[in-house]
Amino acid sequence: MQFTIKRNAFIKKLNAVQRAISSKTTIPILTGLKLEVEDDQIILTGSNTDISIETTILTSDEEAGLNIESTGSVVLTARFFGEIVKKLPDETLTLTVSDGFQTTITSGAAEFKINGLDANNFPHLPEIDSQTTIELDSEVFSELVRETVIAVSNQESRPILTGIHFKLDGDQLTAVATDSHRLSQRIVKLPGNTTESYDIIIPGKSLIELTRMLDESVKTIKMQVSENQALFTFDDTLFYSRLLEGNYPDTSRLIPTESTTNLEFSASDLLASIERASLLSHEGRNNVVKLTVSAADQVVKISGDSPEVGNVEEQIATKSVTGEDLEISFNPDYMKDALRSFGQTEIDMSFTSALRPFTLVPTEDRENFIQLITPVRTF
Amino acid sequence: MQFTIKRNAFIKKLNAVQRAISSKTTIPILTGLKLEVEDDQIILTGSNTDISIETTILTSDEEAGLNIESTGSVVLTARFFGEIVKKLPDETLTLTVSDGFQTTITSGAAEFKINGLDANNFPHLPEIDSQTTIELDSEVFSELVRETVIAVSNQESRPILTGIHFKLDGDQLTAVATDSHRLSQRIVKLPGNTTESYDIIIPGKSLIELTRMLDESVKTIKMQVSENQALFTFDDTLFYSRLLEGNYPDTSRLIPTESTTNLEFSASDLLASIERASLLSHEGRNNVVKLTVSAADQVVKISGDSPEVGNVEEQIATKSVTGEDLEISFNPDYMKDALRSFGQTEIDMSFTSALRPFTLVPTEDRENFIQLITPVRTF
Repeated sequence: MQFTIKRNAFIKKLNAVQRAISSKTTIPILTGLKLEVEDDQIILTGSNTDISIETTILTSDEEAGLNIESTGSVVLTARFFGEIVKKLPDETLTLTVSDGFQTTITSGAAEFKINGLDANNFPHLPEIDSQTTIELDSEVFSELVRETVIAVSNQESRPILTGIHFKLDGDQLTAVATDSHRLSQRIVKLPGNTTESYDIIIPGKSLIELTRMLDESVKTIKMQVSENQALFTFDDTLFYSRLLEGNYPDTSRLIPTESTTNLEFSASDLLASIERASLLSHEGRNNVVKLTVSAADQVVKISGDSPEVGNVEEQIATKSVTGEDLEISFNPDYMKDALRSFGQTEIDMSFTSALRPFTLVPTEDRENFIQLITPVRTF
Repeated sequence: MQFTIKRNAFIKKLNAVQRAISSKTTIPILTGLKLEVEDDQIILTGSNTDISIETTILTSDEEAGLNIESTGSVVLTARFFGEIVKKLPDETLTLTVSDGFQTTITSGAAEFKINGLDANNFPHLPEIDSQTTIELDSEVFSELVRETVIAVSNQESRPILTGIHFKLDGDQLTAVATDSHRLSQRIVKLPGNTTESYDIIIPGKSLIELTRMLDESVKTIKMQVSENQALFTFDDTLFYSRLLEGNYPDTSRLIPTESTTNLEFSASDLLASIERASLLSHEGRNNVVKLTVSAADQVVKISGDSPEVGNVEEQIATKSVTGEDLEISFNPDYMKDALRSFGQTEIDMSFTSALRPFTLVPTEDRENFIQLITPVRTF
């Protein structure tokens, strides 16, 4: 096999596929990148046990300037091959594979000879036989992942909680994540008229990698689901993720329906105050910040304190304070994650008591996005 | 003590002093920043066992908007205090120290109370009684450090080699560093008429920290030397570094005076080739790159090779090739450091044999700047 291609376009595709390739895997061939050269395209594939990425460069793609001399396939050590391609001197490169998968890469005056592997030993990608495809605006999908993935658990003790739970029901897609200390839920309406329904759990890490690939040029993303895999398709790229097996806990009953104290804030102002208070809470043994509401005076205070180092107290500018007085303590890091997910909007915080979970919702859209945080008992 | 100051100006000074403060020191008070408030200025001091930095903010400095209510002194945990100041909500902050070194920092609606320490327990800075001061252009000084510090040793087995050797002789300042595998030497002429001479070794790490503080606003830097300390003064800042004790090896006899093969290159072109070749040498057991000169054909080749992974070969564009044929191997990382120190200039490489050190000098200024590298024996 032999082809010539413009280096910059090739690097872009290499970078995409390399997201799926780990140099630490115990299966040597998976440290490799599979290159398949066909008559009118080359296909690049990378895979690990969680995700697989396949992307195509067509000879008709002018930016790539792809010229195929002869077809074939090879697997090359991904990290090393990527470094070589990035450092080559010329605008184009020629890659030739000869007997025994000996691979020659030439560009300008530089000639690299590296050992390749037989592409037949590369694992096959899963087959997705699902007939239903849902289509999502890629920006909406990225936002949905960004907003919920913060609540995904990092603990492998309950693997099911390391994923985001997706529930499709007609034209409504609900994403929920919880690590049992906090919960994040986002609902989006799909534009199409799907009558489909499914209920799957996709690893949070897979979704983070996927959304990193969705730059501005990607407008829509298609999603298909089979028994144990999800397939996302955009542009010339296929992104496979395994699904987590098991039943996700019923989270709907965790979200309180009533409240006794309600506050309205600017999310970014409150975030700045929590960041200051957490400077002190991080120094102490208990990473806890206290919020005190005096409804009659319309005063809300944030305080943090560490016996060894000192304390901080700050009155927060609120848009409105209604309901009962309250003193509640929580982990400021959970609060920071939640507030960052709202960006520059106004938010509503609703409390029932110092020991019950409280919620944050955007005042503009109370139904479709909710962050829930469990307080910390401090007495 | 109490003062009010603009936060941005204060942060800039805090950042400078924090370079000298390590949070890992075993002497608790040295994790602190000393604040001394006098009638018309505040002095910030940080110190570790190698360097000490003292900087002053005057009430006359309009940018700082410093307003002193009462004088006094305190030591505050530097890292933590710095984080607080950076996160305060308002443009200004007020710092008040009351009984027992209890320190209150207010800014906008936020109020921090932290525990301070008695400034009397902070170690005194060394006294420099030297009468002679040499003055250097700060850009020239930074360049001199940057060019030579690459050859400083990281091994504590021979502590003397972890420093740069400075020799002042009349109006000529010579800086030399060597880790015994390579050597870098730079000579600068001083503008003033010094009749002074000295011979000192300053730790490379101190000089790296010092040059990081020399931004474009700093035009000149003064240098004074006492028995075991060097003091650098610029703007409102004093920078002290301990000196290394002992005799620096005589490096003058290491620099060859004759050569049998001479090459002329663009430093940046050669650097790109060496970077490519080192991709392969880094994979192999011996991190070695080979340079082959065929004088008759005017051909110079760089090659790298790793039995497990593959090999690379590249012909280099030379400006001139004179003398005898040669095959020489060297550590490409030393070569990369040396070539980077030259920037975009043309350089001359001079060789005597495959086993003797070779040199690189800029073709424009052969006398004052030299990089020397010892080859690797590969047979």
